[in-house]
Amino acid sequence: MTPTPKRFDPRDPSYEARVRASFARQRAMHTIGARLVRVEPGEVEIELPFRDDLTQQHGFLHAGIVTTIVDSACGYAALSLMDNESAVLSVEYKVNLLAPATGDVMRAVGRVIKTGRTLLVCTGDVMAITGPTETHVTAMQATMMAVRGRPDLVD
Amino acid sequence: MTPTPKRFDPRDPSYEARVRASFARQRAMHTIGARLVRVEPGEVEIELPFRDDLTQQHGFLHAGIVTTIVDSACGYAALSLMDNESAVLSVEYKVNLLAPATGDVMRAVGRVIKTGRTLLVCTGDVMAITGPTETHVTAMQATMMAVRGRPDLVD
Amino acid sequence: MTPTPKRFDPRDPSYEARVRASFARQRAMHTIGARLVRVEPGEVEIELPFRDDLTQQHGFLHAGIVTTIVDSACGYAALSLMDNESAVLSVEYKVNLLAPATGDVMRAVGRVIKTGRTLLVCTGDVMAITGPTETHVTAMQATMMAVRGRPDLVD
Amino acid sequence: MTPTPKRFDPRDPSYEARVRASFARQRAMHTIGARLVRVEPGEVEIELPFRDDLTQQHGFLHAGIVTTIVDSACGYAALSLMDNESAVLSVEYKVNLLAPATGDVMRAVGRVIKTGRTLLVCTGDVMAITGPTETHVTAMQATMMAVRGRPDLVD
Repeated sequence: MTPTPKRFDPRDPSYEARVRASFARQRAMHTIGARLVRVEPGEVEIELPFRDDLTQQHGFLHAGIVTTIVDSACGYAALSLMDNESAVLSVEYKVNLLAPATGDVMRAVGRVIKTGRTLLVCTGDVMAITGPTETHVTAMQATMMAVRGRPDLVD
Repeated sequence: MTPTPKRFDPRDPSYEARVRASFARQRAMHTIGARLVRVEPGEVEIELPFRDDLTQQHGFLHAGIVTTIVDSACGYAALSLMDNESAVLSVEYKVNLLAPATGDVMRAVGRVIKTGRTLLVCTGDVMAITGPTETHVTAMQATMMAVRGRPDLVD
Repeated sequence: MTPTPKRFDPRDPSYEARVRASFARQRAMHTIGARLVRVEPGEVEIELPFRDDLTQQHGFLHAGIVTTIVDSACGYAALSLMDNESAVLSVEYKVNLLAPATGDVMRAVGRVIKTGRTLLVCTGDVMAITGPTETHVTAMQATMMAVRGRPDLVD
Repeated sequence: MTPTPKRFDPRDPSYEARVRASFARQRAMHTIGARLVRVEPGEVEIELPFRDDLTQQHGFLHAGIVTTIVDSACGYAALSLMDNESAVLSVEYKVNLLAPATGDVMRAVGRVIKTGRTLLVCTGDVMAITGPTETHVTAMQATMMAVRGRPDLVD
């Protein structure tokens, strides 16, 4: 009934190195303290330890900060399936905030659900982890774009 | 043809002080360097000067960071119309990324387009400003919720 | 990593009868020829046989028609978990169109991913079925609302 | 503050005839009784008289039917700005349902807010009209795609 999660063959065997190098250039990730945990073809995981200086007025992580890590997870899930001459740009995303983003660590997973030459569609989820407890705090549905012929955009 | 922008009467005459106090508690805003520029009933403006440490891999502001300020602008536009016993939570938002977020300053404006007892719908826009030039970089459509009877959530 | 699909206990043991009765009152479903295939707690399936008079300019089913069935599937997935004094309203949804909606039958499945007293969040998928082939044509992420104390809204 | 509505120069002087011919091929529009009211560069208006056989369980127009007309309005707003060798496809949309869709006529207006070679971003609104009263019932934010080199897709 539910579409079976897909397995993708990467076009570029060095997809992981390419994703890791691009992530290292995302200075926002470094600033907020996010780390790239896992890179598979079409699926990427990013973690963000909770930090008080990233909260909104109620002491939860700001929705925009949570969006930041799951957008990167989806974007890099898309990039992992592109050839090595493409850069990735976020076209749009939709985020539902399911529960307050509080806990020890936020774990964002982005997955490609549809590939295309130009557009890739992804879903993303963020789990808040506190000890053995995982709470689903955010769901994303996103469109990513493969940009070619733009040497100024390096990924 | 287009719905005329609405004028709203605030339920709470001290709406501006309430929004400003809540914004001051959003530590994420302080961390990224955003400032609350303008508070009107149903419309709020937040500015973010460009900072290299908030960029993605191509040197533009990370989409999630831009989302952070326009989510706060929409949320506070909603809060400005609530009574003084309500807190605001983001239910969901959708963001289209129209152009690279680069320039001197990002200016986010959130506006309420529909009020309700529990849910308020907002649109948000982010303009990138460089000297006299303004570029429309992001459009948001968002749902905000008025939460009552939760003294642990202070706004 | 991915949130495990949830099993929900219905609050109202007669959830299926209630959903089926409400579906029967959706005259739009009858007009387009959709049928309610399956009702489980938090998951509902609707099928729509292809019809030429529901197409867009390229001969595919119109995206809005596909949205119609997956919106109903998500709404009834939510209603199946509500008490018998609540009506369901769609608050908002986001739809990605992954592939042309063409085939013998469109099968829409809506699933609740988060319950709450007032708001429920759902995901929906539409598969185009032609013989043994299933193609994922549409993905939805939606917010549904439980409306109480409105005897004029009967579900 | 708010981005000024844009004026666009059409690439193809026969944009209106092209949009009208494509609309005439959307059999779903004919089936539900929608009519194309106005075509300008980057802005298109479609009306749908209320019909009982298009309602959901509470007697309002089904959200998916309302989505159908505003999706077409946005899609044709995009097509009006394309060259005469492009077809338009809906990539994704997000819809907020602001008020029950009831009244004499639903008027959907789609407007392009950002053009690009491949992707165009639109906003759409639906007003329910009953005598002199207009109620804003739906807001859409959508991405449309220009498809070239596909003679099987005629617009």
